[in-house]
Amino acid sequence: MISSRSTRSVGRPMSGSVPLSGRRIRTGTFPPVSTAGQPDAPAATPTPPPTMADRLALEPVPGEPDVFTSRHACERGHVFGGLLIAQSARAAQLTVDGDRAIHSLHASFLVAGRGGEHLRHEVERTRDGSSFGTRRVVVRQSRGPALVLTADFHDVEDGLEYELPAAPAPPPDELPVGRYASPWFESRDVPVAEGSLARRAWFRPVLPVPADPMLHLQCVAYLSDHGPTRAAREPHAALDADANRMSVSLDHSVWFHRPVDVNQWLLSELVPVATGRGRGLAIGTIRTADGTLVATLAQEVLLRSRT
Amino acid sequence: MISSRSTRSVGRPMSGSVPLSGRRIRTGTFPPVSTAGQPDAPAATPTPPPTMADRLALEPVPGEPDVFTSRHACERGHVFGGLLIAQSARAAQLTVDGDRAIHSLHASFLVAGRGGEHLRHEVERTRDGSSFGTRRVVVRQSRGPALVLTADFHDVEDGLEYELPAAPAPPPDELPVGRYASPWFESRDVPVAEGSLARRAWFRPVLPVPADPMLHLQCVAYLSDHGPTRAAREPHAALDADANRMSVSLDHSVWFHRPVDVNQWLLSELVPVATGRGRGLAIGTIRTADGTLVATLAQEVLLRSRT
Repeated sequence: MISSRSTRSVGRPMSGSVPLSGRRIRTGTFPPVSTAGQPDAPAATPTPPPTMADRLALEPVPGEPDVFTSRHACERGHVFGGLLIAQSARAAQLTVDGDRAIHSLHASFLVAGRGGEHLRHEVERTRDGSSFGTRRVVVRQSRGPALVLTADFHDVEDGLEYELPAAPAPPPDELPVGRYASPWFESRDVPVAEGSLARRAWFRPVLPVPADPMLHLQCVAYLSDHGPTRAAREPHAALDADANRMSVSLDHSVWFHRPVDVNQWLLSELVPVATGRGRGLAIGTIRTADGTLVATLAQEVLLRSRT
Repeated sequence: MISSRSTRSVGRPMSGSVPLSGRRIRTGTFPPVSTAGQPDAPAATPTPPPTMADRLALEPVPGEPDVFTSRHACERGHVFGGLLIAQSARAAQLTVDGDRAIHSLHASFLVAGRGGEHLRHEVERTRDGSSFGTRRVVVRQSRGPALVLTADFHDVEDGLEYELPAAPAPPPDELPVGRYASPWFESRDVPVAEGSLARRAWFRPVLPVPADPMLHLQCVAYLSDHGPTRAAREPHAALDADANRMSVSLDHSVWFHRPVDVNQWLLSELVPVATGRGRGLAIGTIRTADGTLVATLAQEVLLRSRT
């Protein structure tokens, strides 16, 4: 992760240089970025998209209004749930006019994503009101619906501001690489406070995200799925040592409180709220470095021990 | 409210005496309860259903599978959002087999309910898996969809248990009647702690709810909508004095952690998390008198001042 981060400062072509305006984009596509070093990757082994913009890029399906497919196939093996959520939020956004941005999403995971396949996003225009809009997205793969998502959109408004205060966190540059570091997001784990079940981590894209405000919100949706499954398991440390444990996301919600520059470090905090009956609920926040609350999230998880 | 509560002890016929088994109910109907005192109420003035069982009772629509209508028309004037949520959760449950109970719901309010009309609930059987199921409900009135709701269902499982600890609250019997008392739920407000934005209230049905475990969860969904709109406004006390203020529910989520006997007092706690951009988010919990966490909820609200 450290080595990939260092590319930020040595002139590797950035998708940030692609001339994009978030207010004019009417498709989900971005110009392809060359994937140096993997020019001859066989079709059966999908090349990982190099940037978050590529990872979330969608193509309209000809002849099928409001249907989109992912430009890139999913990674082999486990498909990250945040990918389904962020791509389907993007698909919904592509059917919404103007500056009306997502303010909440609620998704139910139906079956695990299938690695190596594309995602197909079918958008229903549930309602367009005078200042709000609602969309439903069904995400399909070859074995049927993988995710259903409701996304709600709101025009730009002003209003009084408040946020639950947060404890200060040590800055990311002083911390070791975190457990959720990936080819797309750097991550640094904040040391755990004595006796606390809360878990905090810093996140920043490995390569900058282009200047499309809607894409930045979608990136927040994406990283909101880093950690809640484990957070829900946190009260039961014994499960962590159980090689047969299983935890699977059931439903996922995000509330977006304000616009965000996802290229700046963001701090995720996740807290387990309840477990029982084979399930657990974690609630979390995503804040900027100065503590501003950008998003709140909740995820319910299936917790099993296959003994 | 006190007078209606006193009927509990003087032998008024209770819907609790209706022989119902929650595991066998395949319709949403309950035997009608006589509404003494309003025998000749004109059709244009709906008689309020006397009990929570009546209030949530549904009738299947002949010839339309998985479509239900409310037995009783909505009250005149403002229609309580919790009614739409609880009835639609009931409609979803009526299409689910066996002991598979609701574990989460996520609803988006599209337009305000129209008083005096019935609610029509159209259920989509999104998925039936080996231990989980998903339903979508569209709630319609004459002017179109009023609510869309996703409900997720889970078989009975065992698992490790945890819950965020709670501060003790004074027992309800020592407290004055609360602001959310209604013909269906008693309520008592817990005194507000100095400097805290959290608001707590006790709830109990005015007349007992029959022994249908699914109906008890639906009653929890119903009362989860008592308070969050105001809680989201709590950080801005000035708005409380603003006669032109407006707060409307946008989306509502409930996670059900375990079965509940709603006939026992339940304690609701609501905390504002964030406001800004004309919106606010409140998160809440519903606990039994011994502090057991029964449900967690979240509601996002539109906050405007029409000056």
